[in-house]
Amino acid sequence: MRYASRNTDYLPKAFYNIKADLPSPPKPPLHPGTKEPIKPEDLEVIFPKGFIRQEGVTAREVPIPGPVLEAYSVFRPTPLVEATALRKHLDTPARIFYKYEGVGPVGSHKTNTAIMQAYLAAEEGVTTLATETGAGQWGSALAYAGSRFGIETKVFMVRSSFRQKPGRRVLIEMFGGTVLESPSPTTEAGRKFFEKDPEHPGSLGIAISEAVELTVKNPGIKYALGSVLDSVLMHQTVIGLEAEKQMEEMGAVPDTVIGCVGGGSNFAGLAFPFVRHNLGGSRRTRFIAVEPDACPSLTRGELRYDFGDSVGMTPLLYMHTLGMEFVPPPLHAGGLRYHGMAPLVSHLTAMGIVEPRAIDQKTVFDAAVLFMKTEGILPAPESSHAIAVAIDEALKAKAEGKERVILFNLSGHGFLDISAYNGKAGSF
Amino acid sequence: MRYASRNTDYLPKAFYNIKADLPSPPKPPLHPGTKEPIKPEDLEVIFPKGFIRQEGVTAREVPIPGPVLEAYSVFRPTPLVEATALRKHLDTPARIFYKYEGVGPVGSHKTNTAIMQAYLAAEEGVTTLATETGAGQWGSALAYAGSRFGIETKVFMVRSSFRQKPGRRVLIEMFGGTVLESPSPTTEAGRKFFEKDPEHPGSLGIAISEAVELTVKNPGIKYALGSVLDSVLMHQTVIGLEAEKQMEEMGAVPDTVIGCVGGGSNFAGLAFPFVRHNLGGSRRTRFIAVEPDACPSLTRGELRYDFGDSVGMTPLLYMHTLGMEFVPPPLHAGGLRYHGMAPLVSHLTAMGIVEPRAIDQKTVFDAAVLFMKTEGILPAPESSHAIAVAIDEALKAKAEGKERVILFNLSGHGFLDISAYNGKAGSF
Repeated sequence: MRYASRNTDYLPKAFYNIKADLPSPPKPPLHPGTKEPIKPEDLEVIFPKGFIRQEGVTAREVPIPGPVLEAYSVFRPTPLVEATALRKHLDTPARIFYKYEGVGPVGSHKTNTAIMQAYLAAEEGVTTLATETGAGQWGSALAYAGSRFGIETKVFMVRSSFRQKPGRRVLIEMFGGTVLESPSPTTEAGRKFFEKDPEHPGSLGIAISEAVELTVKNPGIKYALGSVLDSVLMHQTVIGLEAEKQMEEMGAVPDTVIGCVGGGSNFAGLAFPFVRHNLGGSRRTRFIAVEPDACPSLTRGELRYDFGDSVGMTPLLYMHTLGMEFVPPPLHAGGLRYHGMAPLVSHLTAMGIVEPRAIDQKTVFDAAVLFMKTEGILPAPESSHAIAVAIDEALKAKAEGKERVILFNLSGHGFLDISAYNGKAGSF
Repeated sequence: MRYASRNTDYLPKAFYNIKADLPSPPKPPLHPGTKEPIKPEDLEVIFPKGFIRQEGVTAREVPIPGPVLEAYSVFRPTPLVEATALRKHLDTPARIFYKYEGVGPVGSHKTNTAIMQAYLAAEEGVTTLATETGAGQWGSALAYAGSRFGIETKVFMVRSSFRQKPGRRVLIEMFGGTVLESPSPTTEAGRKFFEKDPEHPGSLGIAISEAVELTVKNPGIKYALGSVLDSVLMHQTVIGLEAEKQMEEMGAVPDTVIGCVGGGSNFAGLAFPFVRHNLGGSRRTRFIAVEPDACPSLTRGELRYDFGDSVGMTPLLYMHTLGMEFVPPPLHAGGLRYHGMAPLVSHLTAMGIVEPRAIDQKTVFDAAVLFMKTEGILPAPESSHAIAVAIDEALKAKAEGKERVILFNLSGHGFLDISAYNGKAGSF
């Protein structure tokens, strides 16, 4: 293994806003009632005003506030690692690099936007944030960030993950957050599903409906979303901005950038700062967004307006979607169980810049175990989707005898997903 | 936070053998039958020959074999971090540093000696290693190392930890290891306790007896121990040797070095390379070994010959001991539930170089939660003993208005101990 340094100077002072560089903008979100482009003030019942401003920002560089930078500096810059042991095992001419976001406090990239959103909420006196979470990465990240900025969090956790991953509930509670199993009987949206089946596995869409309902009905509560929206993706660009400098230190420029996609934020966070050069015409880097074949919004969904939740309470987003009614099967990669896709990732896919790919759970776990055995890091099942495709690309390079530079996002560790690895034995 | 670099050059090419620098040697291990100093050949029924040679080595520097260095390079050098956020929170003039061993494949320092022991065993054709494990750190480390060098592992896991920490069982099995709950009905030693109480919580001493019995009765099996013995401590000196170089990079020399002690190996691994300068007379660094007050071998045990296990099968070691019959209460820091202490740590304590300290579980968890909230790393309950004393020392420095440099070993992360944190809420 070769580790790039975690030089404090690599931490960017501004987010990168890809919208400033797009030749044409994505279609705007629509008001769920009027079906007209939504106005910032329409969003105020849901989001903190500072967050709404971030969502509408047009500048290319958006400054990161001082207290947010200070919070980032606890774990950022995150490591950039050259996977020399994996490369040796695969016997490939391709160099493989990964940006490792698992060193964050709750073990995933989600903390990047959580800290920014908690800061923006605290700035205007919001005392409680409501949200949803799949496998718990986002919920625990928001609870951590909330605790840091004096904000209480209420987290609707998708039931299938709540049952599979009790560890992340403990983390949320450690930071003073409250966890509700979703679908819950505490909201109208939740009751629709809960009353039919109290063991309903839930979905991110349903949990979003519950959190949004709680927000709309309580003026003291605002809502925070962990992915999908433009500004959430923008907050994650700290990943790619750091990676770019660290790759330079390692003397390499990636020709292929890979990330897993659920809502799209970790992929976007790594990729967008590199996409910038494609948009500027100076490079032709490939960008591969990897999703589970059990929830294939980007590869098999339609590109159209749809609701972000399962009940129809959110604005309509123009995105690849499997339909708001789609409930993905329980899946270890709980963070990828979402019916839609970030509008910006959908837009870049439609432009042909992002290549979507769907893979099956067995391939994912095989990749995860091989990665653990060579690189010594137990990956999250979500992140393992990116590993699987990185391995696939490295083996293609071998078949073609081509030197290549592959960079992927290892968005989180899998120690809190350990039950998912039960029975997945093997040897070197 | 400030991170020292993980420069490949910092990985030492040789272990540091403190025995070469001691003014007088510790008393030798005795044969359990004859009570005479044990001869290397007496140990051959238990240990691989290469391991026995390491145990008797007298050179100051013991070369690390190439394949072991290659295995280390997957995760070593480990990070050395200046805890600037914790310091700020404590408002102390003391600078606080920690060496973070949690980045290893199974999340603790145990991999350092596991890799060396698996290598030595494989070198002479051993196919199976038996061992015991408390919280599972050592068992999972040996299973990982075994998998790497083609060796099968059989792990007797202390029942109280087996029940509390199922995650580490999954890790062991992921690397092809077999896990037996101890006391088990499969050995004579285990049956003594199992038949009286099938729910007996177990102890490291009992689990050692079981593993040693299995070894003695099966010529194809050798035994590996995760702590206590001189060479095991020596293998851990990679921690302190790296830390010394990284501290130099950070422009600091520690005046206080802290580690938790169960058997003593992570403490020794960090401390011994620094103790060297005290022995040479050039420094007067303080060394604090921290143990749980529920298992206070160093602070309340007697310094005398005792068995390493609970049945009397191992050689007699001259060490601080609570008595081989002592069964510590179930405790989240399962890795510290051992009745004895490494002879070398006992020796340095008797010499007045090592200060022992015992602390209670509540203090430990308060320190752990504060560390998580400031430094963003969830520590293992074992390692949190070191954190608690580092905080205590930093606050003393504050009370005295003294600039100090404190270095402690963060020997592992706590994500697989997450159940221990259930209900431990708080806020920043």
